[in-house]
Amino acid sequence: MFDVEDVLPRLTLEEKAALTSGADFWHLKAVERLDVPSVMVTDGPHGLRKQTSASVGLGLGGAEPATCFPTAAALGSTWDVDLTRRVGEALGRETRAAQVAVLLGPGVNMKRTPLCGRNFEYLAEDPVLSGELGAALVTGVQSQGVGTSLKHFAANNQETDRMRVSVDVDERTLREIYLPAFERVVTRARPWTVMCAYNKINGTYASEHEWLLTQVLRDEWGFDGVVVSDWGAVQDRVVSLAAGLDLQMPSAGPRSDEAVVAAVREGRLDEAVLDRAVRRVLEVVARAQPALDAPGAYDADAHHALAREAAAAGTVLLKNEPVDGAPLLPLAGGRILVVGELARTPRYQGAGSSQVNPTRLDDALSALRAQRDDVAFEPGYTLPEGRPGDDASLLESAVNAARGADTVVVHLGLPAPDESEGYDRPRLGLPENQVALLHALAEVTRRVVVVLAGGSVVEMPWRDDAAAVLVTWLGGQAGGSAVADVLTGAVPPSGRLAETVPLRLEDTPAFGSFPGEHGHVRYGEGVLVGYRWYDTRRLDVAFPFGHGLTYTTFGYDDVRVQVHGSGADVTLDVDVRVTNLGARAGAEVVQVYVRDPQAGVVRPARELKAFTKLTLGPGESATASFTLTARDLSYWHPGLRRWVVEGGAFVVEVGASSRDVRGALEVDVEGEPLWGELSAMSTIGEWLEHPRGAQVLAPLLAPREGEQGLADLDETMRAMILQMPARALVDSGFAPLDHDDLAALVALANADEEG
Amino acid sequence: MFDVEDVLPRLTLEEKAALTSGADFWHLKAVERLDVPSVMVTDGPHGLRKQTSASVGLGLGGAEPATCFPTAAALGSTWDVDLTRRVGEALGRETRAAQVAVLLGPGVNMKRTPLCGRNFEYLAEDPVLSGELGAALVTGVQSQGVGTSLKHFAANNQETDRMRVSVDVDERTLREIYLPAFERVVTRARPWTVMCAYNKINGTYASEHEWLLTQVLRDEWGFDGVVVSDWGAVQDRVVSLAAGLDLQMPSAGPRSDEAVVAAVREGRLDEAVLDRAVRRVLEVVARAQPALDAPGAYDADAHHALAREAAAAGTVLLKNEPVDGAPLLPLAGGRILVVGELARTPRYQGAGSSQVNPTRLDDALSALRAQRDDVAFEPGYTLPEGRPGDDASLLESAVNAARGADTVVVHLGLPAPDESEGYDRPRLGLPENQVALLHALAEVTRRVVVVLAGGSVVEMPWRDDAAAVLVTWLGGQAGGSAVADVLTGAVPPSGRLAETVPLRLEDTPAFGSFPGEHGHVRYGEGVLVGYRWYDTRRLDVAFPFGHGLTYTTFGYDDVRVQVHGSGADVTLDVDVRVTNLGARAGAEVVQVYVRDPQAGVVRPARELKAFTKLTLGPGESATASFTLTARDLSYWHPGLRRWVVEGGAFVVEVGASSRDVRGALEVDVEGEPLWGELSAMSTIGEWLEHPRGAQVLAPLLAPREGEQGLADLDETMRAMILQMPARALVDSGFAPLDHDDLAALVALANADEEG
Repeated sequence: MFDVEDVLPRLTLEEKAALTSGADFWHLKAVERLDVPSVMVTDGPHGLRKQTSASVGLGLGGAEPATCFPTAAALGSTWDVDLTRRVGEALGRETRAAQVAVLLGPGVNMKRTPLCGRNFEYLAEDPVLSGELGAALVTGVQSQGVGTSLKHFAANNQETDRMRVSVDVDERTLREIYLPAFERVVTRARPWTVMCAYNKINGTYASEHEWLLTQVLRDEWGFDGVVVSDWGAVQDRVVSLAAGLDLQMPSAGPRSDEAVVAAVREGRLDEAVLDRAVRRVLEVVARAQPALDAPGAYDADAHHALAREAAAAGTVLLKNEPVDGAPLLPLAGGRILVVGELARTPRYQGAGSSQVNPTRLDDALSALRAQRDDVAFEPGYTLPEGRPGDDASLLESAVNAARGADTVVVHLGLPAPDESEGYDRPRLGLPENQVALLHALAEVTRRVVVVLAGGSVVEMPWRDDAAAVLVTWLGGQAGGSAVADVLTGAVPPSGRLAETVPLRLEDTPAFGSFPGEHGHVRYGEGVLVGYRWYDTRRLDVAFPFGHGLTYTTFGYDDVRVQVHGSGADVTLDVDVRVTNLGARAGAEVVQVYVRDPQAGVVRPARELKAFTKLTLGPGESATASFTLTARDLSYWHPGLRRWVVEGGAFVVEVGASSRDVRGALEVDVEGEPLWGELSAMSTIGEWLEHPRGAQVLAPLLAPREGEQGLADLDETMRAMILQMPARALVDSGFAPLDHDDLAALVALANADEEG
Repeated sequence: MFDVEDVLPRLTLEEKAALTSGADFWHLKAVERLDVPSVMVTDGPHGLRKQTSASVGLGLGGAEPATCFPTAAALGSTWDVDLTRRVGEALGRETRAAQVAVLLGPGVNMKRTPLCGRNFEYLAEDPVLSGELGAALVTGVQSQGVGTSLKHFAANNQETDRMRVSVDVDERTLREIYLPAFERVVTRARPWTVMCAYNKINGTYASEHEWLLTQVLRDEWGFDGVVVSDWGAVQDRVVSLAAGLDLQMPSAGPRSDEAVVAAVREGRLDEAVLDRAVRRVLEVVARAQPALDAPGAYDADAHHALAREAAAAGTVLLKNEPVDGAPLLPLAGGRILVVGELARTPRYQGAGSSQVNPTRLDDALSALRAQRDDVAFEPGYTLPEGRPGDDASLLESAVNAARGADTVVVHLGLPAPDESEGYDRPRLGLPENQVALLHALAEVTRRVVVVLAGGSVVEMPWRDDAAAVLVTWLGGQAGGSAVADVLTGAVPPSGRLAETVPLRLEDTPAFGSFPGEHGHVRYGEGVLVGYRWYDTRRLDVAFPFGHGLTYTTFGYDDVRVQVHGSGADVTLDVDVRVTNLGARAGAEVVQVYVRDPQAGVVRPARELKAFTKLTLGPGESATASFTLTARDLSYWHPGLRRWVVEGGAFVVEVGASSRDVRGALEVDVEGEPLWGELSAMSTIGEWLEHPRGAQVLAPLLAPREGEQGLADLDETMRAMILQMPARALVDSGFAPLDHDDLAALVALANADEEG
């Protein structure tokens, strides 16, 4: 085992430059003479993709078998921090067993649009949910002595043009929507590495973004690990190093290393910058050594069982309406017809760098047959890259079979070419052949359950054709068994939507500004992403954020909110009692939202601030308790450029989804002073709201001999004047001032109390 | 009469500096020793506000009487180019008669949000309609030998923080939405002056925006007049002069002139820049001399009659449903009850700098009584700054009176404090007392006509309470008579909506990004402004853009479209036959929209490109003919930074509103080549679409020995690779290339055909 402090001073400039890029596609460089070994990093995030051959790059095959856990779309829907941590621990055990130093994940980018081809790798449309679960994953993986790479930092919310596009976005939106999940994971779980994104932010590549990689990530959040580039994200390595990148991946080649050496020699790159990067890289290599020296093994059966548990926990029961007096789920006895090619040819993970070679693979049809007799099957439709067949005759055969069945379980979902890393989804809907099948089935029976697979939401104009709809996302290698568990009731579904299901593409927040044009994508919707958009604009949705049913129901009562302190030190204690009202055990996700009805900026109708998942037996009650901090009430003040608590009323809402609020309490919070420096361009209104500004200016707005004062003017004129900059008083002659007088007033208003 | 060429070389530097700012609030400076007189400019735009006293600035009273023509909100709703030009001529006659050199108007800013307090001064939410009518106004005024000031250039679409706010907007949105009305007026009508706005655009004050004031306005559009500042819009006069501003208003004072002199002396300002500004100012002064020397007089009666004609032409009949078998309008005989304080206390113009002291003032109640017997009146509600009263008893009295009436005409509208220059509207709705009155009336009779006044649209959740709704906007001093004309049928209503009536504030395009925060307003909706937003997002609206009924109906047939030429030279001839199907004469506004269903950028669902207003007798037919140019099919290409015709299908729609398309024809248009230079960051897809790029790169993507080529990959992988920059081929090893090879390919692909 080498010692970083020992190695550092003995490295040549050439060796230091070399250490800041990879040895090949997956390995960091060794320094053999100083016993610094080469370590391996590999793709994640929901399983290990350790390539066995020398084939690298675009070839995605040839990886060693590993447990394919549910994708982030499914994990995000669990809303279960503890379970997510346990999945992370399992991922860590497999990483360690494979003698890999760093697992490249998790991804905590926001789902800005359901069309993002890589949404299946991201957890949620909300930063609190994403951040909590992302931190749990990192904590879990790193508990095994190996590292993670939090990605893709930052604002990588689409695949279209991802290697060039500039995300044009204001700082408040970055701070409130696109950065906080990263911030939460970095500050709570301390990932070993952070992976910078391909895209630009406001014209600067993430890989060269000093504000992002150094000021925000390190100086503000205290990150002390390695910033690694996404594979191929570096344009100019010297610029990237100076901005705060430590490690370019994959291998950049000897000429690139020489360019770094030359930049240091010629004074264009401070050697101290390079030293810092090298130290961080070596520290990661050193941290991994104990685990790499004692890799251990993992229990593939246990991991498969965990994958099955997590898949069921992420399954969202969207609807479960009674037919003939009882809901269809869990399945009663009788003849069950399973329809849909996807029931036997599962889609369980997404395409691209996250693709795992699973240790085994369950399909829903076999799994259901293992739990139930009398399960018939009809493929119903073809998949674009699946077995050949004729949709018309498959549909006819399925409809005929449905006439003789007691319940029809139809497996639908996005075909593989519809979503992938590397490009965005071409449409929001399911393929026509699947929708046609469902309509035809609905015409012969009302006892239709839809099981829906896909890495992100689809539009559901067909949702009235099914009495029950279950969304499984891309559930990993045990997803098939998990579906069977949920259908039969062996395991109650306990997922909740981590993303809104919109009615149509035109309703989605990024519609019209996604995927951008000619190198720029405008984040025109600002902070109104996901449910923040739908709720603030009061748009109808198919199913709201946070929604999900199970086989029992819950009552909420006794909501209490207590305010402690004020301003930047305020905290709110929130308590609510939740009772399982039904005859079966089940889990409820209690969600706490905050509304800020009056603020100096546009605030969303509500924002998730806390949540917890309670499992309760029949009739059982529990009290959920939360503590909200000042940050949970704050917004990012674009003028002061910091988080602020603006005083006034806040509404704390407790509920089962963003549109199923079960209790709301308004509290009054004392805010912090928000005035900045006054200037001649500050409005008269701003002067009069400022304690010293008002003292100074008000006398000048009082009536003068024979003339009107501000208070004498009618409402219209007064409103107009309050919005004018103080400078306009000089131009207008309304107050007896010249520019020198005004400058003196500015100085006086801004002087310290003591001054 | 002085000669500009003679005067220019004889001016001292001090005199030149002085000439580029005003003498006082309303006058330009004289140079007495060279016989250059001082000329006056005054506010418009819908009438002359020539202040009589020395009182200037915030005091808006004390102006000489002038005809108060309908505001721009009403004029815009006429969709009548000829009538608008005649109004312009009348304005010009009054300007000349008052010996004023320049009338400060018209305003052609887009109505980005109905909440803009100054919307009553703007014509439309569409740049073609705004530009056509704006050009007609300028042509009309300037035909009288006096000048206009086209304002507020540019992107001044709100009053909130107008003197500081930065409009953050991309170039394509500026070019397609916020600039083209200015462009149309400048290139067609050649206004003497253009007034720069208060606000910043992308961080730079309009008054200092060299790209805007010089590159776009002068170099591209050929503007050769004076750029004058909005009153108080100049921050740093030297910077403004260098950017292309010619004249600071109002007077900047001697110290400011000295600063200009010093800047020239110290080489910080090119004297040639100052010379150009002075020449332009003197040219405007010289141009005005013939008119100022022979001011003439105007016929106040004739102008009042014209104001009455224009007000009726801008009145929009939104609905006119039959009650008891016949529509309520035009009014049949019987007892008419007029309800509403606004019927006797009219709102006919907006507050702020445009406020005119009218030569007379008609109110709707008196005007109706002049045309009809048996007209009773009830005030119904109070106005915030009107006569005192008790709303409850006024309502009760009105309801009692309504029981005895045959038809109830209810005058509703925005109270004066709800809209003004200087601040934005606090709400989209009418006051509660007015809505309550209408509901109460609707409960006793279905024969309710609403006459609605206001400078912009209001939400109309109450619209089912009225069988007929007539919008009069702020109709000028003769608006009361015009309402009577339309109600009785003496003049059929012929206005069409120049702005969409949305269902609710949350549906409006700028909701969530209006009015901005802390100095910035993000134009997040991009080009999707007005009906472009509602139609593209498929949102329901109360009444669509272009909508308006009259007392007859029209049939459309025989729509023809013929394509001539291609690319930048393409033109489309569009013809349609329109027939008056009813028994009364009336006017139809025939609207031509273009859809571009497939394009490399997000294009609105449809865009207005041409219109005409046809007046037809009963049974009469006419053919409307239009020629669309390449520009009418083009979009602003953000990469190439020019207008382009992208080849493919275009749909030409002819109809009576954006949602009442009566005929649509698809034509195929041959486009221009759109490829730019290729680079290592161009995607593989872009290389393969580029004729020389494809030649060069395709062979490298063919299968090599023992390896797959691009064509062998599955759909998912192929789609991913097409979106990768060519540079990724080097990193990935997919093609046998290093960075030098790629550089050579780039050179080869970009070489001229001859090269």
